[in-house]
Amino acid sequence: MKPINPPSGINRRLMLSSLALLPALSGLSRPIPAAAQTSTEGGPLPSWNDGAAKRAILTFVRATTDPSNPGFVRPEDRIAAFDQDGTLWVEHPMYTQVVYCLERVPAVVEKQPELRDVEPFKTVLSGDREAMARLPMADLERILAATLTGMSVEEFTTEVQRWLAAARDPRWKRPYTELAYQPMLEVLRHLRDNGYRTYIVTGGGQDFVRVYAQQVYGIPPEQVVGTAGGTKFGYDTDGKPFLTKEPKLLLNNNDAGKPEGIHLMIGRRPNAAFGNSVGDREMLEWVGAGDGVRLKMLVLHDDATREYAYGPAQGLPDSKVGTFSPGLYDEAGKDGWTVISMKNDWKRIFAFE
Amino acid sequence: MKPINPPSGINRRLMLSSLALLPALSGLSRPIPAAAQTSTEGGPLPSWNDGAAKRAILTFVRATTDPSNPGFVRPEDRIAAFDQDGTLWVEHPMYTQVVYCLERVPAVVEKQPELRDVEPFKTVLSGDREAMARLPMADLERILAATLTGMSVEEFTTEVQRWLAAARDPRWKRPYTELAYQPMLEVLRHLRDNGYRTYIVTGGGQDFVRVYAQQVYGIPPEQVVGTAGGTKFGYDTDGKPFLTKEPKLLLNNNDAGKPEGIHLMIGRRPNAAFGNSVGDREMLEWVGAGDGVRLKMLVLHDDATREYAYGPAQGLPDSKVGTFSPGLYDEAGKDGWTVISMKNDWKRIFAFE
Repeated sequence: MKPINPPSGINRRLMLSSLALLPALSGLSRPIPAAAQTSTEGGPLPSWNDGAAKRAILTFVRATTDPSNPGFVRPEDRIAAFDQDGTLWVEHPMYTQVVYCLERVPAVVEKQPELRDVEPFKTVLSGDREAMARLPMADLERILAATLTGMSVEEFTTEVQRWLAAARDPRWKRPYTELAYQPMLEVLRHLRDNGYRTYIVTGGGQDFVRVYAQQVYGIPPEQVVGTAGGTKFGYDTDGKPFLTKEPKLLLNNNDAGKPEGIHLMIGRRPNAAFGNSVGDREMLEWVGAGDGVRLKMLVLHDDATREYAYGPAQGLPDSKVGTFSPGLYDEAGKDGWTVISMKNDWKRIFAFE
Repeated sequence: MKPINPPSGINRRLMLSSLALLPALSGLSRPIPAAAQTSTEGGPLPSWNDGAAKRAILTFVRATTDPSNPGFVRPEDRIAAFDQDGTLWVEHPMYTQVVYCLERVPAVVEKQPELRDVEPFKTVLSGDREAMARLPMADLERILAATLTGMSVEEFTTEVQRWLAAARDPRWKRPYTELAYQPMLEVLRHLRDNGYRTYIVTGGGQDFVRVYAQQVYGIPPEQVVGTAGGTKFGYDTDGKPFLTKEPKLLLNNNDAGKPEGIHLMIGRRPNAAFGNSVGDREMLEWVGAGDGVRLKMLVLHDDATREYAYGPAQGLPDSKVGTFSPGLYDEAGKDGWTVISMKNDWKRIFAFE
């Protein structure tokens, strides 16, 4: 294990905004009764209610795949981009990756016992969530560096796989990988069935999401664009080469970083983009500025019963995680982006319901 | 146009090593008689002579695509990586992208007349190749910054397309895009016909290669991994978003940068890799260190008559562009990499022969 250096800004906002929510965690141990609605409708989006959102998706796919339609897109050019946290799976009360980082701290300290009495590790080990929420930025960055870097890419993958197999969301008591939104899984499949390559474009860590993206979303590693740190090539004592994850930020894939990351990783403009927060604004603008038929959609979390309700758009409670601002809502209305109401547009939220 | 800042190291080696060769250009205006050999053999690699190299490719493809073979690779996991300069097309006497940068200087000066009497633009405009070869590093970086950054990604693409349509290689008097090696185009196709996704992994500029990779190699933009600079998201006066190419190096995709770039862009280890120089060593090592059947190949430029001859491996003339060192040759022999002799393994070099 290498000495821990402060990573230059790896997902600073993600970490900070999540930790600010930590005190709210304590009340979250009661399961919600499953809505248990199953669809009897045919068609490719069975978990969607009829409405503007479902129609926007079906219309887009028909227009871009019908050779006689002026909006036709050649199969090799069909690309759709999806934010992950809050768009494809649950992001409240805290991003799953941040939970991972905090829960990895005991294992890190076990390997480096000298950290036990050093901040911020001491505070995280104490379990005092209010104290954790008050940790200064430099300390939060040390947690990210210690849990996301300093190991080989294979070791990191193995650690995340192990954690995902054991960890349970406190509300639904299920693996985090089961908290993907069933209606969105149907959109991914419908687009792929119509020749689209589906990409994740996430503010979360690229290597973290890659571990489960194939299994959960059917999306291979090369189609995950995320916040990415550098790696360093080296050799082990047997001369076998390996890559070490370094505390060096290459791409902060949030806000303007999303179209920039899309250019780096895909090199062309997607035809469709899905998001749910102000961090997706520039991606939707970039996708919308292209020629031809474009699909721009935002998931609004307005279902406190079946999932969570937060905005502060539309008078929903404010949130530092996955903020959907009134300004974003206005821009959506003005520019023809479709807002998906989880409450009204989705028959069910999860596959297990 | 933004003021030109020195880019932090964008392809410094590429630029320097190419310019060092400039004096050699003057003698290169005589066309070589076409070899005009056409194959009568069947099979997927008609431009290859029978031999160890051709057999290595065919054996690899059979082993990894036959479900009853222990080396079988699932179709979704089949990935092959190709260096470009010197592996897929001609790199002598100078990398094509460096020719582009030098030939763009007059257009840059036309837009910014104040540069006319400023170094290094003054020297490049003079056409004095010996003086150009003596330009200091900081000046060379200014040429790269001025010709590869400071414009939108669409403007850059348009400029490269225009240049490629008009520019001619001085030896063959043909567009650079016709100087792809026919035997390697057949390898790309044979791999794709067998379910492999083919990637370019080049020290050249990612955005430069993306302009023609689909047309020349059948490789889409998202499968080009290259030396990459950052972009910056912004809005034009009408509020339309665009991305500007910035003089900021994100990925130096040479040497150890190749496996690092592969991890960033692909996120998994290719099964096959093709290169031709010391800059490909770490990529081949990385690919070779994976499990199962692996194909590692190096193109040796040993055909002074039909193309160029350089090493200095095997007593061939030394070269700063595309160096194939004796040490690399030894490593290939020791680790089971196959060296492709252009002279002996290839029936023809170009499609136009």
